[in-house]
Formats: sequence, structure tokens, C-alpha cells
Amino acid sequence: MQFTSEQRLDDGVLEREFTLGEIPGILWTPASATAPAPLILLGHPGGLHKMYPRLAGRARHSAAEGFAAATIELPGSGERLRLVGAEQARADLRRALQAGEPVGDEIIDALILPLVEKAVPEWQTTLDALLSLPEIGGPVGYSGGVISIGVRLAVVEPRISAAVLFAGSFVPRVMFEEARQVTIPLHVLLQWDDEGNDRQAALDLFDAFGTQVKTLHANLGGHTGVPQFAGDAAAQFLTRHLK
Amino acid sequence: MQFTSEQRLDDGVLEREFTLGEIPGILWTPASATAPAPLILLGHPGGLHKMYPRLAGRARHSAAEGFAAATIELPGSGERLRLVGAEQARADLRRALQAGEPVGDEIIDALILPLVEKAVPEWQTTLDALLSLPEIGGPVGYSGGVISIGVRLAVVEPRISAAVLFAGSFVPRVMFEEARQVTIPLHVLLQWDDEGNDRQAALDLFDAFGTQVKTLHANLGGHTGVPQFAGDAAAQFLTRHLK
Repeated sequence: MQFTSEQRLDDGVLEREFTLGEIPGILWTPASATAPAPLILLGHPGGLHKMYPRLAGRARHSAAEGFAAATIELPGSGERLRLVGAEQARADLRRALQAGEPVGDEIIDALILPLVEKAVPEWQTTLDALLSLPEIGGPVGYSGGVISIGVRLAVVEPRISAAVLFAGSFVPRVMFEEARQVTIPLHVLLQWDDEGNDRQAALDLFDAFGTQVKTLHANLGGHTGVPQFAGDAAAQFLTRHLK
Repeated sequence: MQFTSEQRLDDGVLEREFTLGEIPGILWTPASATAPAPLILLGHPGGLHKMYPRLAGRARHSAAEGFAAATIELPGSGERLRLVGAEQARADLRRALQAGEPVGDEIIDALILPLVEKAVPEWQTTLDALLSLPEIGGPVGYSGGVISIGVRLAVVEPRISAAVLFAGSFVPRVMFEEARQVTIPLHVLLQWDDEGNDRQAALDLFDAFGTQVKTLHANLGGHTGVPQFAGDAAAQFLTRHLK
């Protein structure tokens, strides 16, 4: 992990950009940390530059609660190499949505599964590097989309203790089986009228999660309309489970 | 409205029992109110004595936030006269649930509609009396079950500005039409494994609400298992909209 830039934000939060091999990322740490900080991994749909304002907002909110927060670029997004087949799958998805057709399993699988396969080990490598820093301890939470990445991480990565999952992307059928294996506390956010999501599939996925501690917060509105109070409630969930 | 008893609870909240004609009720007001307090009407499934500990807990929580809170006995519950047909409908419901059969519309209608017809005007009369007290002002919220009573009140009673609805009872088909007429902010609580509820109907009802501000909080567990943090979130919703 190589830090490539460093700045203090106006609230004292230290923001550092880094690279881990070919993967760019950003780490935010609280202004004044007296002990190694618990960590929140910030998930997003890809495109670090475009997502920066919202990610930094979430990170500063977390830092105010004493958390470090980190994110990495998704495979195939931003400056990174495209994923084979992803452009085709995205075009197929657009065509299906514009035609008002149901989005077929083969489109969803082609869009999401290669992303999950590649992103999850990258998150794990990033976690190795982050936890080797003296200013970061644990526990660790995951917060955000892509929901299938969060589900896979919750299953395979024992260092993640709780997760906020944003149900804002299509879910491959195979993830419903994996969902049964999730045993950590979950807080699921659903935008009721999300155009890039299948509401019934999101409800079925929530039902499938094997954990004994799960909460669904659904709010009226589209994909980007998560209300401030819903973000606050998700932050409260992480504070309850990670501190 | 006649007060029949009065006591100060250990946190200074004033608890007064009252009767309004044949209807018994309880009013809680904050320890130190400098101005007329906003009011929360506490809904419940019937049986004031049995429900008292939980109602008093919710009322004291509300009082700590500066709210007055009040509840009345439901028609047909506690010491009040039985409702015609209700015993039969309850027996039919039990039989259907024990047999694992779907609960028919005629059972749900017979169980819920007479209750709504009688309870809603009683809540309105109670509201008249409460708002005539100098220590109570507004705005007014409704919080709790029976969800169909909350829906009808939200439609017909313009003095109610926001409602927390507990989706813990069966919903007559006619209420889905009424739900479209609800325009106040709603916060709906759903216990995912509630045995006395139809989950899909609850989700359909949430979908049907006409308001532009609605949130669904679903938590794992049965009818009486609403977690403390879900109660806190509902209280935050009321504080956001009534203060």
C-alpha cells in the first residue's frame, strides 16, 4: 500500500489517497484518534472520482463517530481496465430496461458475477494492508453497494463483523444461496422505487439472509434518493455493532 | 373527560387515568412543560391493563422528548362491551391459522372493520377533549397498531400530522384503497416473522400509501419482538415531524 497524497479536511479528518498494486483507493482517519480506530469499508457502484463527494461525506460522518473509513476503485471502473463482457452486459441491461422487459438471469450474472469474483479478493487484500497500519484496529464493517459484493464479503471474510447493504443493484440467483450463509448483523437499505433494482428480489434476498439480526429500511424514492435520516440510521447501526 | 386518578412517576411524568363516557384512557404529560406539549396518540391491540407496562414505557420515552401521550381502551377490549361478531371472527381466525389455511377476506373484514368503524370516532372525540386541555397543544401524531385504525385516522383526521404504523394485524381489502388517500408522513414497523400478520399484505399496503414520505422498518422476529433500536427510530421519526 503506497500513499500518494495526503490532506487535512476542514474538520480535521486526514484523507490519504493510496494505491495497492493497480488499485486506487482512499483512506480517511479521524482527526484525533487515541487508540487504533474501528474501520468501515465503503462500498459504491464504481467510479471513485464521480462518487468522491458522497464517499467523502460518508467517511467524514463515520470519522466523527471515531471510525476510520476506506474505499477502493471497483474492477472495471474509473481508470481501471474494463472487465471482459461487462460492456456487453450493460448494453443488454439497458436494452431490456428501455424495452420494459424483465431483466434475464444471464444478463444479471454477466454483469455482476465477474465483478464479485474480482472485487472481493481485492477488498480482502486491502483489508490486510489497512489492518497493518498502527492507526487502524477493528472491528471492521462494510457499508454500501454493490450488494452482491457485500454479501460475498460477509460470507468469506471473518474480519467483517457487521454490514450495511444497499439493495440498489440486480442480484444473481446464486447470491440467494450465499445469503443463507450470512450470520453477521445486517442493515439493508432499499429505495422503494429504485429503477436499477428489482424490488421483489431485494425483499427475497432480505428474507434469505441467514443471520438472526437483520433490519430492512425502505424509503420512498429512486436510487440516489436515500434520505439523510436513513444514512444516519445506518450509521447508528454500525456504531451499535462495531463500538 | 373526567380524570379518575393521578400520580407522578419516578421520572416526574404525570400519569392520569380518565374516562370519556364509557371509554377509559390514560394521559401522560412531561415532568416540566413550559408550553403546550405536542401529543402522541398511542395505538395498541386492546386490553389497557395487559398493555399498560409497554404503553407506559412508550409514553415515558415520548415525555422525555417533550411529548404528551395518551391512549384509550379499544371498543370490545378490557372492561368494555364485546363487539358483536368479534368473538366469532377471532375463533374463525384461530381455526384458519391452526389449520395452516389462508385467512379469508370475510374473516379479516369481520374482525377488523367493526373495530375501525367504532374506534376511529372515539379517537377523534378523545382528541377533542385532549386538545381542550391547556397543557396540550399540537401537532398530533398517531403511533402503534391496530394498523387499519391508524390508516383510517390518517385519512379522516386532519389534526394528525404524522403516524408510526405497526403492521401487526390483518388488513381488510378496503383499507388498501384508503391507504392511497394517506398524505401525511408515515413510518411503518414490520416484524418479518409476525405470526398474526400477512407479510406480503403489509408490503402491499406500504406500497399503496399515497404519501410522498414513507419509510418501512422491518426487523427479524415475531409480533412482540420489536427491538429497542426500532422503537428509538420510530421516536426519532415523530420528533422529526412533530417538533
